[in-house]
Amino acid sequence: MGKQMKPLEWKKETHTLTFVDQRALPALKYVTCETLEDVVGAIKNMVVRGAPAIAVAGVYGLALHAFHVFDNKNKILDELLVELKKSAEQLKNARPTAVNLSIALDKILQDAQKLQNLEDLPTFILREAEEMIEEDRKMNLQIAENGLPLIKDNFTILTHCHTGGLAVASGEYGTAQGIIKHASEKRRKIKAFATETRPVLQGRITAFELARENVDVTIIPDNAVGILMYRKIIDCVIVGADRVVYTGHVFNKIGTYPLAVLAKYHQIPFYVALPLTTFDFEHEVPVLNPAFDITPPELITALICDKGVLYPPFDNAIAALKASL
Amino acid sequence: MGKQMKPLEWKKETHTLTFVDQRALPALKYVTCETLEDVVGAIKNMVVRGAPAIAVAGVYGLALHAFHVFDNKNKILDELLVELKKSAEQLKNARPTAVNLSIALDKILQDAQKLQNLEDLPTFILREAEEMIEEDRKMNLQIAENGLPLIKDNFTILTHCHTGGLAVASGEYGTAQGIIKHASEKRRKIKAFATETRPVLQGRITAFELARENVDVTIIPDNAVGILMYRKIIDCVIVGADRVVYTGHVFNKIGTYPLAVLAKYHQIPFYVALPLTTFDFEHEVPVLNPAFDITPPELITALICDKGVLYPPFDNAIAALKASL
Repeated sequence: MGKQMKPLEWKKETHTLTFVDQRALPALKYVTCETLEDVVGAIKNMVVRGAPAIAVAGVYGLALHAFHVFDNKNKILDELLVELKKSAEQLKNARPTAVNLSIALDKILQDAQKLQNLEDLPTFILREAEEMIEEDRKMNLQIAENGLPLIKDNFTILTHCHTGGLAVASGEYGTAQGIIKHASEKRRKIKAFATETRPVLQGRITAFELARENVDVTIIPDNAVGILMYRKIIDCVIVGADRVVYTGHVFNKIGTYPLAVLAKYHQIPFYVALPLTTFDFEHEVPVLNPAFDITPPELITALICDKGVLYPPFDNAIAALKASL
Repeated sequence: MGKQMKPLEWKKETHTLTFVDQRALPALKYVTCETLEDVVGAIKNMVVRGAPAIAVAGVYGLALHAFHVFDNKNKILDELLVELKKSAEQLKNARPTAVNLSIALDKILQDAQKLQNLEDLPTFILREAEEMIEEDRKMNLQIAENGLPLIKDNFTILTHCHTGGLAVASGEYGTAQGIIKHASEKRRKIKAFATETRPVLQGRITAFELARENVDVTIIPDNAVGILMYRKIIDCVIVGADRVVYTGHVFNKIGTYPLAVLAKYHQIPFYVALPLTTFDFEHEVPVLNPAFDITPPELITALICDKGVLYPPFDNAIAALKASL
């Protein structure tokens, strides 16, 4: 197994933040940020991707700036907070649609007001980022553990798009792909097929990551899935989700829906792995972006969530999950 | 409509043969052959593709050589025939798997022995090539006419891979794509979607050709077919075939089978267009090449052939077709 790939990594010695450049994957290129402006640029220019990773990047960016301001100037806490509030605005404006980022920064600014010592501020923000990563890691591991009993020995698993560690803040499990990785760690003999995932080819990142995790993985054109299922080569399909609404409709990367239809036709289980935060308890199917499609609940075997595994009827199961929160 | 694109064209003035370079498509590049060796090279290097076009290319190559030998030397017919037999072997060896090429060349050499005048030989071979093209054109037009009643006004038609004029000898209709072209010529208001057809992306040639034929065509990733069907945008699917065996199983470009499953699931007609020569009346499903897949008869609405339209049960329909020959 190769060196751990973290989508973002804080360097204690230099108070800098290094990203795996998501735009270059599956080539491994790094972008190191030394200033707040660097981090704002990295968020703006898609060096970092995925809502949780962007939120963590923003908090690290704030920590980075707090360290620098603290190092360079002698200010009182109130002044420093005003300065950080300005910085938080800059970070939020780098990706105005990233709700998680906005929420995380606001919470930190609010909590920071309760601090007693000026010296604690940079470390406090840094700890916040580290906690976010640790929560993300635990949540993803929980999804992987919940999915584990569904993966039998000698299974051949098909996955779509990229849902691995590099797509989340911790760099460790991810969602659908995390189940595959975890099953392999638990010594299940498994084989994976990753669809290329046209048009953006995220499947190349999936194959790159799984291969580094010592999973036997083959990348295939999206349209080769049919013949693999026809020849009974695939035992189950696991995909991630961008959003799952309360009816159980899954909104995900284009190509998910035809996989679900093919799985149904061949009587192959079709699993969707997702964190609790991906559920939308309020809305029905959203307006469709051409990069995504909709998979209706009748094609889905189970929703594998960090809070447990949900089975049909999904509207009831999702309502029960919501009630349990 | 742009200039007619012929996959291969004989120049009377110069006795040369010009190919549309199939490797460059959808860019239009031409390769002109002045010698037998040029034609052998073009066949070897895939400048020309598809069994009927390769056969015609070989016959033109033989004509080209006959003209040159006739121009340069003063020989008796028997010597010229020996020379041409050697040339025919060279052409056959350029693509030993091309059965049509071999049959066409052998037939010409045999018929040539009945010629009375030495002067007639080059023209005789040339006329043979022209007849082959005309037969190919008629056969493809017949497929298009047989398919026409299945295409209603305002239909949106999905097709896969490339089955247009550039894939056949005449450059005019092709198979599946010929039905779309013909429906458009007959003033049906239609819209076409062409799958990209990974991994080789032949859909780009389809879209290029259909656009030149003034058909409203959109190219889509293979995996976007699902959501189009889900949203009831597709009225029928028409594909070509590499081989159809007597059980009705269709052997065709990878990605055909999942389209058939999706069409069945969405209750959309799924048509396969093919010339009589594509039927294999003797064999069952052949050994699978990874570039192809198999579509079983239960997913097929009709087989549109130059000899008529076949409906299920296909084994009976194909047996009846065979008996009628």
